[in-house]
Amino acid sequence: MRPNPIITFTSDFGTREYYVGSVKGTILSACPSANIVDISHSVASHDLLEGAFTLLCSYSCFPARTIHLVVVDPGVGSDRRSILVVTENHYFIGPDNGVLSLVYEKEEISRVISIEAEHHFRQPVAPTFHGRDIFGPVAGNLARGIQPEKFGPEIEEFTRLTLPPPQKVSESHLEGIVLHVDKFGNLITNLSPSAAARLMGREASPVEFQIGDRTVGPHVEYYSQAPQGELVSLLGSSGYYEIAALKKPAARLLNLRRGAKVRMAVD
Amino acid sequence: MRPNPIITFTSDFGTREYYVGSVKGTILSACPSANIVDISHSVASHDLLEGAFTLLCSYSCFPARTIHLVVVDPGVGSDRRSILVVTENHYFIGPDNGVLSLVYEKEEISRVISIEAEHHFRQPVAPTFHGRDIFGPVAGNLARGIQPEKFGPEIEEFTRLTLPPPQKVSESHLEGIVLHVDKFGNLITNLSPSAAARLMGREASPVEFQIGDRTVGPHVEYYSQAPQGELVSLLGSSGYYEIAALKKPAARLLNLRRGAKVRMAVD
Amino acid sequence: MRPNPIITFTSDFGTREYYVGSVKGTILSACPSANIVDISHSVASHDLLEGAFTLLCSYSCFPARTIHLVVVDPGVGSDRRSILVVTENHYFIGPDNGVLSLVYEKEEISRVISIEAEHHFRQPVAPTFHGRDIFGPVAGNLARGIQPEKFGPEIEEFTRLTLPPPQKVSESHLEGIVLHVDKFGNLITNLSPSAAARLMGREASPVEFQIGDRTVGPHVEYYSQAPQGELVSLLGSSGYYEIAALKKPAARLLNLRRGAKVRMAVD
Repeated sequence: MRPNPIITFTSDFGTREYYVGSVKGTILSACPSANIVDISHSVASHDLLEGAFTLLCSYSCFPARTIHLVVVDPGVGSDRRSILVVTENHYFIGPDNGVLSLVYEKEEISRVISIEAEHHFRQPVAPTFHGRDIFGPVAGNLARGIQPEKFGPEIEEFTRLTLPPPQKVSESHLEGIVLHVDKFGNLITNLSPSAAARLMGREASPVEFQIGDRTVGPHVEYYSQAPQGELVSLLGSSGYYEIAALKKPAARLLNLRRGAKVRMAVD
Repeated sequence: MRPNPIITFTSDFGTREYYVGSVKGTILSACPSANIVDISHSVASHDLLEGAFTLLCSYSCFPARTIHLVVVDPGVGSDRRSILVVTENHYFIGPDNGVLSLVYEKEEISRVISIEAEHHFRQPVAPTFHGRDIFGPVAGNLARGIQPEKFGPEIEEFTRLTLPPPQKVSESHLEGIVLHVDKFGNLITNLSPSAAARLMGREASPVEFQIGDRTVGPHVEYYSQAPQGELVSLLGSSGYYEIAALKKPAARLLNLRRGAKVRMAVD
Repeated sequence: MRPNPIITFTSDFGTREYYVGSVKGTILSACPSANIVDISHSVASHDLLEGAFTLLCSYSCFPARTIHLVVVDPGVGSDRRSILVVTENHYFIGPDNGVLSLVYEKEEISRVISIEAEHHFRQPVAPTFHGRDIFGPVAGNLARGIQPEKFGPEIEEFTRLTLPPPQKVSESHLEGIVLHVDKFGNLITNLSPSAAARLMGREASPVEFQIGDRTVGPHVEYYSQAPQGELVSLLGSSGYYEIAALKKPAARLLNLRRGAKVRMAVD
């Protein structure tokens, strides 16, 4: 028996509205056996970077052939394309506004399809809700076995969004920013072991972090190693370095948000 | 192979509590193969109108024979009835307090059953949590194939709630209210093409909207047509006209909430 | 046909982050047919008591053989154990920090396993995210039929957390605290019929509650019996006594929170 096809779903629709449920309805109308898995619907409204980061950090936990639906879509109804990205292991469906594009750096892209086959859409298509009328039905139809090429022509050009890159500012220092503040108040930066190695041309382990006007305490392995009341740095589960504190929101202790500058001294 | 039966679930239980999970447990205890789909659990506490509106805007996206469970139930434990509404395409389960009743205007009702068959309930029934002890088990039992008439007698009288209706105030003007403010700050009104046609006795397209003391800018088709910083009107995915702004919460720009008056000039 | 195995999931991960979705991905990678049911992911950060209470009030609604995954894990990465608790009817998986332990008082424990079998983990294990790399994969592997003893050795010692117990303060009075304030503002206490009977050595029904400097109004059976604007007490669906008000958040009327003292006069 084949397991039910898995469709993950990330959006900025919020959890109070009828939007998420409506999309699930159109998925299930096309593919009643689909197993829909919510990633997050609380991406900040219209925030492509946050949507892209959420997808980047979660998609690879899913089994091969999972379909990832991402709807953060401020340009809905305009002539921005709808795309289906096929990689060796996964499918990605969403608007061609960059919200899918961080995975392009990690996955080999086989094909990008411009979604145009209107007979696979819910009719009439509301120009304000492609999640329900285009993306949901297409995800469902793909899940039930329709081949990717049936949804439209292959395209070569599509929107790429890149995370703000960290910079090398001296032989022993990198500068980056806070990419994301999580629910625990941990500040996730755009600095990573691989970026450090690439920029420095050598394995470069962190010695010390500076953020705001503060020097961060010890570099640790896990949160509960943080001394009471002290800021620490660690390598987070996203693959990026984080600034954290013991059972306290570091973001509030520092009064900082996404975009704040971070400096990393390396050995 | 029959696909798993789908049960949608809308409530005001919030997502922090054990309430939603408990209801799902009793559904799955009765029908382990049920596919439970959350619509929203963040309906404002005790807000029948918001619950009814959420159901109205989502149920028709689901395949035929879907069971829609709606628990917004300030009168739980009192002698308000529990009902099962059977229409040609769907089932609806909830308290008989009007929270299901907006769909009565869109769906032909086949039967309304008063839920009374205690052997289908979880025992003992807590007078404060019929979601867990009555509605969940009944939804699960219906999903596993128990016939509607097994849950109780058919009734003729049941509570109807109606959306506040828009009014014709001149040969070229309708007056309505804001029904709902969504997560993006869009103001969804009770004005619609069909209401305008009915009240005016002709096809009547919107020319201009007034809300608060403001005249709203152009009538557009989708959000990103809104000029920067300007309010626009459009026909939303719910089938109602909305007031919106480009990537900004219109509700905050206007400092208005649900219930605010809206005036629509038509041609 | 065997129904899909059910895995409930409770955490303090929040619903905005990629954390919940990532855990679901690793569960489904091990067991693609798993039916994952969210209980709550809005447990207050690091709050073992709230996590334990959420589990306590929900797990018994699920069918036999359900797997309950609870990840509230401030000590992640340290040498705190990961455990699998086997009872007659359920499985429980989580950190050995007490978050599972309120069920020990209600369920006969068959075995407690220390989770150590690294070949069942996702590799490499991030020291900050055992939910994704250990608990999710173990839950999925258990769901697909791996026997509990394959995950590690049985242990005899494990962490027990107890709810703060109510006290007998006179022949007719008990004193307790507010355990939880729910979404409706109802104040759920640690006082219950069984605790009253045990402490008083007799059946002891509530006569009157005092909280803060207020005497609470009538003891009722369900919320809508509360007179307008008045506080009432009732036996809640959790099995504990609650202080509530009609369609108003009692917690706000009283300006009280978890931990507030409650006094119950009994007959």
